[in-house]
Amino acid sequence: MKRARILHNGQPTDVTVNNDHQAVLADGTTLNENDAHWLPPCDGKIFVLGLNYADHASELAFSAPEEPLVFLKGPNTLIGHNQKTCRPDNVDYMHYEAELVAIIGKTAKNVSREDAMDYIGGYTVGNDYAIRDYLENYYRPNLRVKSRDTCTPVGPFIIDADEVGDPSNLELKAYINGELKQHGNTKDMIFDIPFLVEYLSAIMTLSPGDMIFTGTPEGLADVKPGDEVVIEVEKVGRLTNHIISEDEYVSSLKA
Amino acid sequence: MKRARILHNGQPTDVTVNNDHQAVLADGTTLNENDAHWLPPCDGKIFVLGLNYADHASELAFSAPEEPLVFLKGPNTLIGHNQKTCRPDNVDYMHYEAELVAIIGKTAKNVSREDAMDYIGGYTVGNDYAIRDYLENYYRPNLRVKSRDTCTPVGPFIIDADEVGDPSNLELKAYINGELKQHGNTKDMIFDIPFLVEYLSAIMTLSPGDMIFTGTPEGLADVKPGDEVVIEVEKVGRLTNHIISEDEYVSSLKA
Repeated sequence: MKRARILHNGQPTDVTVNNDHQAVLADGTTLNENDAHWLPPCDGKIFVLGLNYADHASELAFSAPEEPLVFLKGPNTLIGHNQKTCRPDNVDYMHYEAELVAIIGKTAKNVSREDAMDYIGGYTVGNDYAIRDYLENYYRPNLRVKSRDTCTPVGPFIIDADEVGDPSNLELKAYINGELKQHGNTKDMIFDIPFLVEYLSAIMTLSPGDMIFTGTPEGLADVKPGDEVVIEVEKVGRLTNHIISEDEYVSSLKA
Repeated sequence: MKRARILHNGQPTDVTVNNDHQAVLADGTTLNENDAHWLPPCDGKIFVLGLNYADHASELAFSAPEEPLVFLKGPNTLIGHNQKTCRPDNVDYMHYEAELVAIIGKTAKNVSREDAMDYIGGYTVGNDYAIRDYLENYYRPNLRVKSRDTCTPVGPFIIDADEVGDPSNLELKAYINGELKQHGNTKDMIFDIPFLVEYLSAIMTLSPGDMIFTGTPEGLADVKPGDEVVIEVEKVGRLTNHIISEDEYVSSLKA
């Protein structure tokens, strides 16, 4: 099952998604992918992993971490499929990050690695944009890097965990304007999903709808207003969004 | 007006609070302070300031920061007045932090310092517990320090901003088991509330119910299971909570 949320007649509405990428309403009505207004498919806590692929850590000139570098993003950052991400003015480098996102399916506290996968309800595709300019702050990653409005596209849908099977060998790809820019595989994660569930649930309670953004491999590049950015995760989905300028973003809020 | 939320007949219920510290239901029924089950009075984003009082930065052997050290806590951390905070096993030092909490009253984006106070709807009292053991991590403050369940008591109520007036000269006090342990004044904040609203709203949209924990002065001390911790902020309120062990916490979840 693929579950999503769309804005329909002005209301957030739960839908399923069929194999033609259509949103299917409870009454059976279908909306084509580009006619639906996709919302983020869940709204729990947003955990994000820094440097969870050794090649990406190396690309940023950091050593691979000895324990997960994990932090929280604000809910203001979330947008759905086919929505727009604002590139702030006066920054030099904003990059996409193609990520597999694991969705917590039931309340988890002090869960062992062995039991961890029972707590994963499904997966979706995430794009964890970062403003590289501010990355070198000692207290990184700070809100300027990672918590700006619209900087976390997620979706289009959550696919049930059992339809994906093993999440540890999935291809990840990012395209800018149709050109393949980033290509990795979840097998290269430093801390895998069972480890992350054990680690996080030892610290705090995980709740249904919480999202674990599992990190991104090497291959990052700057994005500019006008760019179309597509993230694909094998067996999970394909998430599109577009970069707009700060002026366009501010105008869109007034519309 | 003092607005709060309590658990009443099993449901989260909005109440006001009268001058006898009683919760007043919509039908006029009153509940005494110690008979009400207080919930956190709001549930927006939780912004927390690190080292926002120079004396506290010095106490921790850090230099005062040049820009706000601000990060997000998870909603799993919030508890209300008179509730219990778990001290994890196997940690050496867990300290309270007495804080004035500013509550966003209306959506704020790119708000200037001059207009900032128009966006503050009210204030409450916060206690931002920290597990000092993990503070020295390079990527601090991490989830282990600041995002454990129950580690952010807040309340009992939100008092309207106009009833407090100027928030920049309020006494802050923390008592452990009745003994005054921490005593400061909001006039010693490095970054004041108007600055913080301008700073944060330049990065991201602030929404009604978002909480800005404005930092804590010097005077921290370890707390142990059995301790009663009371935080007082002049003109704003008095927040009590109790420390329990991890065993007691796990038992309370099963109850």
